[in-house]
Amino acid sequence: MIGYPDGRKPKKNFEKKSAVKKENKIFNSANRGMNFENDINLSNEYYLDKGLLLVYKRPTPINIVKVDYSKRSARITDAYFEKQSTTDYNGVFQGKYLDFEAKSTKNKTSFSLSNIFKHQIQHLKNVIKNGGIAFFLIRFEAHDKVFLIDAQWVISFFENGSRKSIPYETFLKEGIEIKQGFNPRLHYLDAVIKKYFT
Amino acid sequence: MIGYPDGRKPKKNFEKKSAVKKENKIFNSANRGMNFENDINLSNEYYLDKGLLLVYKRPTPINIVKVDYSKRSARITDAYFEKQSTTDYNGVFQGKYLDFEAKSTKNKTSFSLSNIFKHQIQHLKNVIKNGGIAFFLIRFEAHDKVFLIDAQWVISFFENGSRKSIPYETFLKEGIEIKQGFNPRLHYLDAVIKKYFT
Repeated sequence: MIGYPDGRKPKKNFEKKSAVKKENKIFNSANRGMNFENDINLSNEYYLDKGLLLVYKRPTPINIVKVDYSKRSARITDAYFEKQSTTDYNGVFQGKYLDFEAKSTKNKTSFSLSNIFKHQIQHLKNVIKNGGIAFFLIRFEAHDKVFLIDAQWVISFFENGSRKSIPYETFLKEGIEIKQGFNPRLHYLDAVIKKYFT
Repeated sequence: MIGYPDGRKPKKNFEKKSAVKKENKIFNSANRGMNFENDINLSNEYYLDKGLLLVYKRPTPINIVKVDYSKRSARITDAYFEKQSTTDYNGVFQGKYLDFEAKSTKNKTSFSLSNIFKHQIQHLKNVIKNGGIAFFLIRFEAHDKVFLIDAQWVISFFENGSRKSIPYETFLKEGIEIKQGFNPRLHYLDAVIKKYFT
């Protein structure tokens, strides 16, 4: 760092720089959590480009009440969100059907099942019954780790009335940690192959 | 038909009856066309109940512009329809990934490709590339017939610039006619098994 000719350090500027750095850190951390979905979508684009995997995010189900056709293109003027009855993602790898839900948690010690709906569990049971591959991708923000865990584990915890969460240790023991990188952001296909194709 | 004692036919009543009949016919025919989607959805429910097949209709993709959070449950007050970039249906049969689009036509002699989007064709090519099963279900209302046709046929016609439609004869030769009934309305799994699993 270049100081003034008299030897003083440009303290004010240095402080500014530091503040910016801190802001970036906070921004990045929040970013990481909020953009888990985005990371998955970008990874899916990468895999699609490479011809390795086809996975799409399902559109959010919406119940349309009123549409205004008077404008050049139809506008929805009243609608509401429907409860999600399936998972966020599904697709195909080497002909096999894949289906998964992705969730991010700030909790350090466990993943709460409060964000998983009964209908989603039923859907995943149907997937398994019909021979499909069903799993969850869970991001533990505090540990900066992402795991693939087979849906059967989540179903078991969900249907065992005594627990409302899955301990972090279960992910360390039974899950597969997903390598994170630049492109793809999440090497989750490696984990899928390791778990279901080897 | 009972006439008057003097031999006259009850013309007025007859006309009325005939009008009702005609209305019913029109209603049924329109119904059949408009309810093709409904028939598929009901067939999917049947197959799901029987544990034979899992197929879901993808929600319509919508771009949300404004949401009003002031009410008890969030209401979407401004949104518009996004162009469909995939197909309507996908799912799993015996572990294999299935993907299809369903269309109904009033045309007697051909199926127009004007309702198929370039993005949908690209999507189906991606499905095939990744080993999935891709097809179309096409209802010819005038013939009261429904066909399964492999997506590759539609892709070929779509990419052959000289044609804008697929002749009805192509469906008779290359498609598989789907048995229609009460439950399931469309025995389309039989056609899927015949085409891809035998």
